[in-house]
Amino acid sequence: MDIPAYMRSLGLAARNASNVIATSPSEIKNHALTCIAEQLDGARRALLAANQADLKQAHKRALDSALIERLKLDDTGIDNMLEGLYQVIALDDPIGTITDIGRRPSGIRLSKMRVPLGVVGIIYESRPNVTIDAASLCLKSGNACILRGGSESIHSNQAIASGIQRGLEIAGLPSATVQMIDTPDRAAVGELITLTEFVDVIIPRGGKGLIARVSAEARVPVIKHLDGNCHIYIDDQADTEMAIALAINAKTHRYGVCNAMESLLIADGLANQLLPKLGAALLARDVQLRGCEKTCAIIDSARAANESDWSEEYLGPILSIKVVDDLNAAIAHINHYGSRHTDAIVTDNPQRAQRFIDGVDSSSVMVNASTRFADGFEYGLGAEVGISTDKIHARGPVGLEGLTCQKWVVRGDGQIRE
Amino acid sequence: MDIPAYMRSLGLAARNASNVIATSPSEIKNHALTCIAEQLDGARRALLAANQADLKQAHKRALDSALIERLKLDDTGIDNMLEGLYQVIALDDPIGTITDIGRRPSGIRLSKMRVPLGVVGIIYESRPNVTIDAASLCLKSGNACILRGGSESIHSNQAIASGIQRGLEIAGLPSATVQMIDTPDRAAVGELITLTEFVDVIIPRGGKGLIARVSAEARVPVIKHLDGNCHIYIDDQADTEMAIALAINAKTHRYGVCNAMESLLIADGLANQLLPKLGAALLARDVQLRGCEKTCAIIDSARAANESDWSEEYLGPILSIKVVDDLNAAIAHINHYGSRHTDAIVTDNPQRAQRFIDGVDSSSVMVNASTRFADGFEYGLGAEVGISTDKIHARGPVGLEGLTCQKWVVRGDGQIRE
Repeated sequence: MDIPAYMRSLGLAARNASNVIATSPSEIKNHALTCIAEQLDGARRALLAANQADLKQAHKRALDSALIERLKLDDTGIDNMLEGLYQVIALDDPIGTITDIGRRPSGIRLSKMRVPLGVVGIIYESRPNVTIDAASLCLKSGNACILRGGSESIHSNQAIASGIQRGLEIAGLPSATVQMIDTPDRAAVGELITLTEFVDVIIPRGGKGLIARVSAEARVPVIKHLDGNCHIYIDDQADTEMAIALAINAKTHRYGVCNAMESLLIADGLANQLLPKLGAALLARDVQLRGCEKTCAIIDSARAANESDWSEEYLGPILSIKVVDDLNAAIAHINHYGSRHTDAIVTDNPQRAQRFIDGVDSSSVMVNASTRFADGFEYGLGAEVGISTDKIHARGPVGLEGLTCQKWVVRGDGQIRE
Repeated sequence: MDIPAYMRSLGLAARNASNVIATSPSEIKNHALTCIAEQLDGARRALLAANQADLKQAHKRALDSALIERLKLDDTGIDNMLEGLYQVIALDDPIGTITDIGRRPSGIRLSKMRVPLGVVGIIYESRPNVTIDAASLCLKSGNACILRGGSESIHSNQAIASGIQRGLEIAGLPSATVQMIDTPDRAAVGELITLTEFVDVIIPRGGKGLIARVSAEARVPVIKHLDGNCHIYIDDQADTEMAIALAINAKTHRYGVCNAMESLLIADGLANQLLPKLGAALLARDVQLRGCEKTCAIIDSARAANESDWSEEYLGPILSIKVVDDLNAAIAHINHYGSRHTDAIVTDNPQRAQRFIDGVDSSSVMVNASTRFADGFEYGLGAEVGISTDKIHARGPVGLEGLTCQKWVVRGDGQIRE
């Protein structure tokens, strides 16, 4: 297979499709999403069979159990995919929205119009539901997309993509609006991320290795999600019951997710009172604790944290704990060691809450809420195509609006520049 | 000089300064801008002397006259710099603006807060006034910046930067809020664009060689301005007098600018009537014409255009002209050969105007106005730190808002995720 030629053909087809989908009215796009839902619903057997083929391969290759769990698709999983599609249908279409209307001293009338990005390349691993989330958000926002799923879910992804393309055709839209790269050859990724002529943005979702490779080699702009080293800081004016409930939820609700708490900070004034109880609750849930000196003096079973622990995204039942002097020390620690993803304060003091909000440089800053809420569904975006830890374009969960940009529209009556 | 160590020290100082400036209130930032204006006003002699040193070098190195023209700074130039500062002071401060406030079904209260990007690296060539435009916009939007001007204007830039830093100190802000790289060593650029730890975005302004190098080597996200191959399409329902005036202005008002018209498209139905008059007017201004077959048949002195002419940014008194069948052909030509910068239609037909606006994929689309209006000052942004031809983050002129992003703010009462 000539990978460069293959990828250029996908790129050209995507660009042509994007010219159609970019100016398609909402009704057509929503109709296509409905057709896609119907196609997938009618193809349940084929989807489950394709997923079984992937699972069989995964067991054969002895992939780790967490990965196999993410890969698995059952009838409930298909129901969730369909529900996701109907949620995207229900979202407002951002395309064509006009804002910032005004007249300039020259007489020109200026406004901004929201438009699609064009062609979006999405590279992801494992979970087949990403295929439908990514495709539906791109379609609704008027973008064509080229998808590259993980090799371990290739059969599931191809089955889903076939259903999507049938749905697009029935709705009268180009099937190349959503394309799935159908070779596991890694060279295809190298081509995709350098196809500046045909691809407008790359969104990688996956492990650090993937993100590092894409960041290093891409020539197309990248919206990336590096890691989620999320903190909760418990202020000495916190409701202690609430603080414990939030910490337990943020750490143990799910371990392998980017918005799980990885590091807990606690004000010195409250440490002696709160840490024994919190430590016991975490240990009862088999969470391993790695603490600073003061923490280890309070919680017997905590082992000493290394410097590297403060930067670590464990994605598992491990938590680092540090006793800090005050709010300023907490903010400084988070800005130094954090990953700018999501960080929360537990406090009853509104001034301190505001100082935390202003001072912490993260995509989501929270007061008295679990970091687990940093999520497209929870934020009402309908779904998310990724969570950006970059600061340009979109920060945090990337939904429909993150897949758009604005162009300037100038209307005049023959104005020339003097 | 140990360039990597030097650049890391600038980066660290910028990051520390950005933590101060990010949360400084508008009054402090405006006061600093006033102090900077006063310092520059009081240092006119030093600025002019520094500029003379650059000009002397430039003549010695026999740099081309257009470059020397851009390099030149006189008292009027300094007045313009000061006026630019006062314009930035008068702009609304975007930082801290709260939008999209709402409550989610979970009970969390969600909003978005506009915040600075952090540390901005700006790489530019020649014109010393970019130093003050870039520094003032970064400061007002709460960003620290690291500036790298062209080697040919190093004395002027250092003199301006000294004035800026004195102004910052008088206002009680860290002088490292604005830093100028003070070595001409090109390795410094290579370090700056890979300093992911300390730099949040790179904005290169300059020739294609610079942009290509930065795009290829950067690990920090880049907001780039590639080229400006701007079009005017004259529809067959256009006011012919207006069409000629707009074409003359867009082509001849200034040649070396990115928003000058480089290619003219005209509807077949109007070509025989309009092209002789327009051709004569352009030839009278010594503009060389390169036309399609039909154009050359109408205008004797037009030479035949090559395929490459349709993509060319001449930045000089040359214009390519093509007769097209209709609006659709014009839109297809612009999307294929254009650079997504600025394109205009001249028409009296509002439906066609709207189809042009919807169909042309450029950062600015215009109706009955000169492409020369695509400019931060003309759009009311106060100044511009660059014009983006990328589609992510900011499109077109990048002013204060382009130097910001939004973070999510979540307020709860102890909500956990079930």
